Amino acid sequence: MTQDTAATLAALAAALPTGILSTGAAIGEAHWHDWSDQDPVPPLALVRPRSTAEVSAALVALGRLGLAVVPQGGLTGLAGGAHPSAGAVALSLERMNGIAAIDEIGLTMTVEAGTPLAAVQAAADAVGLQYPVDLGARGSCTIGGNLSTNAGGVRVIRYGMTRENVLGLEFVLADGTIVDALNTMIKNNAGYDLKQLLIGAEGTLGIITRAVLRLQPKPTTVATALCALPDFDAVTALLKQLRRSLGPALTVFEGMWPSFHDFMADNLALARKPFARQHGAYVLVEASGFGDASIQERLEIVLADLIESGILEDVVIAASERDARDLWTVRESVSEYGRVLGRILGYDLGVPIHAMGALVAALETEIPARFPDARTLCYGHVGDGNLHVVVNVPSAGLHQPHDEVDAIVFALTGRFGGTISAEHGIGTLKKPYLHLARSPEALDVMRRIKRALDPATILNPGKLLPDP
Amino acid sequence: MTQDTAATLAALAAALPTGILSTGAAIGEAHWHDWSDQDPVPPLALVRPRSTAEVSAALVALGRLGLAVVPQGGLTGLAGGAHPSAGAVALSLERMNGIAAIDEIGLTMTVEAGTPLAAVQAAADAVGLQYPVDLGARGSCTIGGNLSTNAGGVRVIRYGMTRENVLGLEFVLADGTIVDALNTMIKNNAGYDLKQLLIGAEGTLGIITRAVLRLQPKPTTVATALCALPDFDAVTALLKQLRRSLGPALTVFEGMWPSFHDFMADNLALARKPFARQHGAYVLVEASGFGDASIQERLEIVLADLIESGILEDVVIAASERDARDLWTVRESVSEYGRVLGRILGYDLGVPIHAMGALVAALETEIPARFPDARTLCYGHVGDGNLHVVVNVPSAGLHQPHDEVDAIVFALTGRFGGTISAEHGIGTLKKPYLHLARSPEALDVMRRIKRALDPATILNPGKLLPDP
Repeated sequence: MTQDTAATLAALAAALPTGILSTGAAIGEAHWHDWSDQDPVPPLALVRPRSTAEVSAALVALGRLGLAVVPQGGLTGLAGGAHPSAGAVALSLERMNGIAAIDEIGLTMTVEAGTPLAAVQAAADAVGLQYPVDLGARGSCTIGGNLSTNAGGVRVIRYGMTRENVLGLEFVLADGTIVDALNTMIKNNAGYDLKQLLIGAEGTLGIITRAVLRLQPKPTTVATALCALPDFDAVTALLKQLRRSLGPALTVFEGMWPSFHDFMADNLALARKPFARQHGAYVLVEASGFGDASIQERLEIVLADLIESGILEDVVIAASERDARDLWTVRESVSEYGRVLGRILGYDLGVPIHAMGALVAALETEIPARFPDARTLCYGHVGDGNLHVVVNVPSAGLHQPHDEVDAIVFALTGRFGGTISAEHGIGTLKKPYLHLARSPEALDVMRRIKRALDPATILNPGKLLPDP
Repeated sequence: MTQDTAATLAALAAALPTGILSTGAAIGEAHWHDWSDQDPVPPLALVRPRSTAEVSAALVALGRLGLAVVPQGGLTGLAGGAHPSAGAVALSLERMNGIAAIDEIGLTMTVEAGTPLAAVQAAADAVGLQYPVDLGARGSCTIGGNLSTNAGGVRVIRYGMTRENVLGLEFVLADGTIVDALNTMIKNNAGYDLKQLLIGAEGTLGIITRAVLRLQPKPTTVATALCALPDFDAVTALLKQLRRSLGPALTVFEGMWPSFHDFMADNLALARKPFARQHGAYVLVEASGFGDASIQERLEIVLADLIESGILEDVVIAASERDARDLWTVRESVSEYGRVLGRILGYDLGVPIHAMGALVAALETEIPARFPDARTLCYGHVGDGNLHVVVNVPSAGLHQPHDEVDAIVFALTGRFGGTISAEHGIGTLKKPYLHLARSPEALDVMRRIKRALDPATILNPGKLLPDP
């Protein structure tokens, strides 16, 4: 530690509320990195406020000392938004964890930002409702992080992104101003919708401290099926037919290309394979019924018709909850990628649904053309136009060629009218490519807003926004 | 016309693209006012661009001359957002009317801002889809106005406000910068969601020129019922039960208090009254089925159970489309208010659902306490916590006591945790009361954003944002 650093930390300790500052070895290594697979960076200090007032006091103190702040939630982000920057102070919301109120008739839940997603889901479930945003990291990720990245997940097709499941926010600006926008009403057209600006801003405009989430009725029956199809054209035909026949009862439509499904099915220890032979495409479908036990039967009838018409080649319909969990095994095998593939490069592309098939074909041609032993696994939330791509070049071992693969993937995505991040965000990893997804004028408006709310660039500098 | 004005108009004519400027008597009186019942004001000039490039050129020219701009769509706003200000130039989007593209698999429609809502609905219907935002002014209001006010309507309970039915925007800033944010994807987490800032900003941050709207599958069956209940507690019990039993099939839940329902039913020329006697509350319910003819039967079973349990006192279920239209008659009688009531004061309050009954009771007590002959009619989108209140003081004739009634209504709304505008916006009429609905810090953030995007205050000055 330099003398300057020691003096800064001493000044910080004097200026902060007591009991919220950690320095040196007292900063747990969990705070040195998120899930973006970048080298760990110990933050200069760790601040863990216990209240919104302490967040405000901390930002005032940090601003006076000219220190940059990296807000941290559950640290499960994949783009680097919460990854420490050298010389910056990490501000973790982990102590602001709790559910303040549930309104069962208004369908709202007011929570602190550090509350884990799984705790929110459980609290809604306990009163016979649901908070429908769901993603694999549910046990670790927090509502504040979900909001800051506008998290998506598997039920966006029906319930939308996190953005669409929030009614109000409380947040703290870089200068310590606490902004109460904790609206609890579905309709409130009284001026600019400031919460929408904070959602998805990855902590660059303010620190979210509390939120009013929107709850939903909970389905009483869920029917699940895994479909096998000849090709991606059949996948879009299936999507059209299920939307028409099921409307909002269609709650999951997850596509898997053979590159992903067959490879993972071969490499996971499945009790039995879902299908006797390989197919050109796979779709996991879920339909939700409300006081309507017939949803299983309705799904069966629709899928039988689709077999008849040749859109489906085969289908497995879950007869029990256990069956349903089995059908999710391949789709939810993300935690096995490391074991099966080694080090990977992961992508989260948005692309118009009609172009998804062509984009996958191009990716599966051009990546191996450059790296002959590359494995390119494609799957995603097809109903939302969200494609996940996992690339591994076995010969590259621990040093996967991310710059070169990034360049191929993002160039193709742009060619098919897509975006570089559908749900993971920009953070540091995708910042160099943001210009591919946003116009220069849009980037300029973003910078104007950043300057208006954080003129000294205290909040998460170097994240999301490219330099002009 | 003063010499100064003549010189300004001459300079404007020279600076604008040819064929888009109207002055003096050539400005149709339709552009002198919106539906906010304020005195008509002839704008200094009317500009009607034919393209986004012409909107940009017009804003540059107007900015150089230091002229304020009032953007105008279908002029059906009720809060005064598009009402001309003295000395300002009206900029109408009426010539930018057309549907550019429909993506039937991605469920998007790209339209120009001046396209009427009804044209958008019809174009979606023609391809077997729906654009679910719907409101009484559908034939006159335009998408640009719907976006600028974040219009609501009767199906918000299922499909959300306009904000939730838009994927991308193109807009022009005060300085003429054209911002292309015409995203067509459901998921696109690549930086700040700028469109959300423009939506509901009532033309104070930029002029929306094009939009990508989100379409939805179209229901194949719709069941409609009018329910009679003892009181508002029964209304919330009905809402809870229908949500549980119908989930997203519940697409309308419109409440009417006796003050509204019985008064209008008595004063409209109804072929037959829906119920033999008066009740404490009424709810119009609609359930939508997708490939599921049983929705009518399901609704009937649920409502029969609710009669059994005493939550409902009576119910009429539509047996035909014509029956359904009849059941809507009282709820949709807005065009008759003038004939039945004379001059009215109208309110559009948002309030937590659990407090709606108490707020109505207080309004129906306190307004007549001040104006003994006052009629206070209450109804609204109960499923969204949106209460419409219509007040008429017969003895006041053409000079309704708006300041005094405003004060009573907004004070009570604040006492019950509500907001002064659920769906109509702020405009000029509610600007003096915005401080009741937004915190000083939130208003300050709004002003910072306004300064960042429109530093010379060219766009719709005097609307929405109160002076500091």
